[in-house]
Amino acid sequence: MQSFELLSQKFALQFDQPHFPPGPSIYEANDYFLKMGGKRVRPVLCLMGNELFDEIKPDAMHVAVAIELFHNFTLIHDDIMDKAPLRRGVETVHKKFGDNTALLAGDVMLVAAYDYLNKVNNTYLHRVMNLFNQTARQVCEGQQLDMDFENKEAVAFDEYLKMIELKTSVLLAASLKMGSILGGAGERNQNLLYEFGKKLGIAFQVQDDYLDAFGDPEKFGKQLGGDILSNKKTFLLIYTMESGSSNVKKELAKLAGSNGGDKVGKTLQVFRDVKADQWALQLKEKYLEEALAHLEDIAVLSKRKEPLKELAEFLVKRDH
Amino acid sequence: MQSFELLSQKFALQFDQPHFPPGPSIYEANDYFLKMGGKRVRPVLCLMGNELFDEIKPDAMHVAVAIELFHNFTLIHDDIMDKAPLRRGVETVHKKFGDNTALLAGDVMLVAAYDYLNKVNNTYLHRVMNLFNQTARQVCEGQQLDMDFENKEAVAFDEYLKMIELKTSVLLAASLKMGSILGGAGERNQNLLYEFGKKLGIAFQVQDDYLDAFGDPEKFGKQLGGDILSNKKTFLLIYTMESGSSNVKKELAKLAGSNGGDKVGKTLQVFRDVKADQWALQLKEKYLEEALAHLEDIAVLSKRKEPLKELAEFLVKRDH
Repeated sequence: MQSFELLSQKFALQFDQPHFPPGPSIYEANDYFLKMGGKRVRPVLCLMGNELFDEIKPDAMHVAVAIELFHNFTLIHDDIMDKAPLRRGVETVHKKFGDNTALLAGDVMLVAAYDYLNKVNNTYLHRVMNLFNQTARQVCEGQQLDMDFENKEAVAFDEYLKMIELKTSVLLAASLKMGSILGGAGERNQNLLYEFGKKLGIAFQVQDDYLDAFGDPEKFGKQLGGDILSNKKTFLLIYTMESGSSNVKKELAKLAGSNGGDKVGKTLQVFRDVKADQWALQLKEKYLEEALAHLEDIAVLSKRKEPLKELAEFLVKRDH
Repeated sequence: MQSFELLSQKFALQFDQPHFPPGPSIYEANDYFLKMGGKRVRPVLCLMGNELFDEIKPDAMHVAVAIELFHNFTLIHDDIMDKAPLRRGVETVHKKFGDNTALLAGDVMLVAAYDYLNKVNNTYLHRVMNLFNQTARQVCEGQQLDMDFENKEAVAFDEYLKMIELKTSVLLAASLKMGSILGGAGERNQNLLYEFGKKLGIAFQVQDDYLDAFGDPEKFGKQLGGDILSNKKTFLLIYTMESGSSNVKKELAKLAGSNGGDKVGKTLQVFRDVKADQWALQLKEKYLEEALAHLEDIAVLSKRKEPLKELAEFLVKRDH
């Protein structure tokens, strides 16, 4: 059983090489984007899902690469849609190469993902691709919902949860499950692992929303309150809107309409007044516990589950 | 052996049904776009390539659907990049639903194509998907070149030819070849069919460029001279630039910079002066003949080739 760090290094050995031929600017754009790096949580989850049941197979590495390419495809297209100028402190693809080249670059990145999937052995290809396609559709649905929410005044907790499941959770869950399919896991174990990933994904997002508001500025590495400044719906905002008094709701609406220098500070105070910070930490704990319960249920030796447990704790307790 | 019309009807029976669940606007956008219809040349080529060697297999229909979905994905994204307001006389997806929804709708359309590919039997899936992916990459490269050409003052004949091969020809060629793979064709026959499709694609594009300039306005159904008005590089323009005197080149450059009501008429006169119209007809004949020679070479009974021959003649001699 290998740790996240070790598997992450092994993945990098395979992944950190040119995936596109020299020449056309769509390929140059993609190599530029891939060089930005990333946490590589999803591909490593695929390897871990595989190793939970067997030694890591070459097919698991192919699928891990496909997953990371797919994830990067979604980021390139999301950045176009969000008109984001920067990602990880660096110019986004559409900013550097133009919208059209970024759009096409994303398209070929997705095709490249399918190229790696196509390396998977006949025994597993149909099943893996079926889950991959289902997940890809769901991630697109999630992005659509996320965009829809920008134009909605109020978003209910359940709606937000559904969006996060689609946009974030299912890819974590599917990464684990694809690895487990390749490891020969039975269906019950596959599904438990999938549910573990789904709950973990929600806990992960709660932590993301929490850090953006209440993180330690020195460790967070980004400007605090970015979500507040861009009026993004988050777990914190939705909880405060749903549980707050009518005065709290009015105050939030007023702050959303303002662009003053005290917008972040005042909004954070409203969050604190209704104890949204404590609520978020409890919500995260709840999903982490549910995730770990599913992991517990998987019928393999407890020892094999250690790296996944550690990773789950890390992802949900990270401070950046 | 079935005619294009008959196979086109059979394909429509399979294809003209909802490919997406009700609900999210990305799916609504896709169903809206698919309802616009189209000539369905590519999927029928896949069925014909299959029937050249065997009775039509269910797998060939799956791949035909995948190809048509892929083609529609490229059209939705191309329309965003070209900022095209209309397609087939109807509002484009990005005009009706917005750029972001169109982008995402295209993405899920591509994923849906892979869903149909994933129905293909194990025996053929890897080979078919390999060719599908290669072709998808090439089509994106072709679109990139096409965009690059818009900003170039002069494009050489060979460059334009390469772009047309990538953007148009290889998908026709691959559609035929995928059908032939599923029909159990040997490699030599597969490749001859591919070359037939490639040459046919070029002849098809020459005819497209020709009709836009010299078509019969009553039959063409679109405004003549659309390419001239938008300063598009075409076979006619490139030939005239390459073969014309320095006066002809100056005149073309002047006309390109003008937006007068006589721009189309005057440009057509320059084309006629250097006999670009006759040259284009000869070029088309040359590629059609080369295509038919490859078809001739395929080791199956001549009678089986009849529908493909008829289709080739039709595509290249059509007046609309």
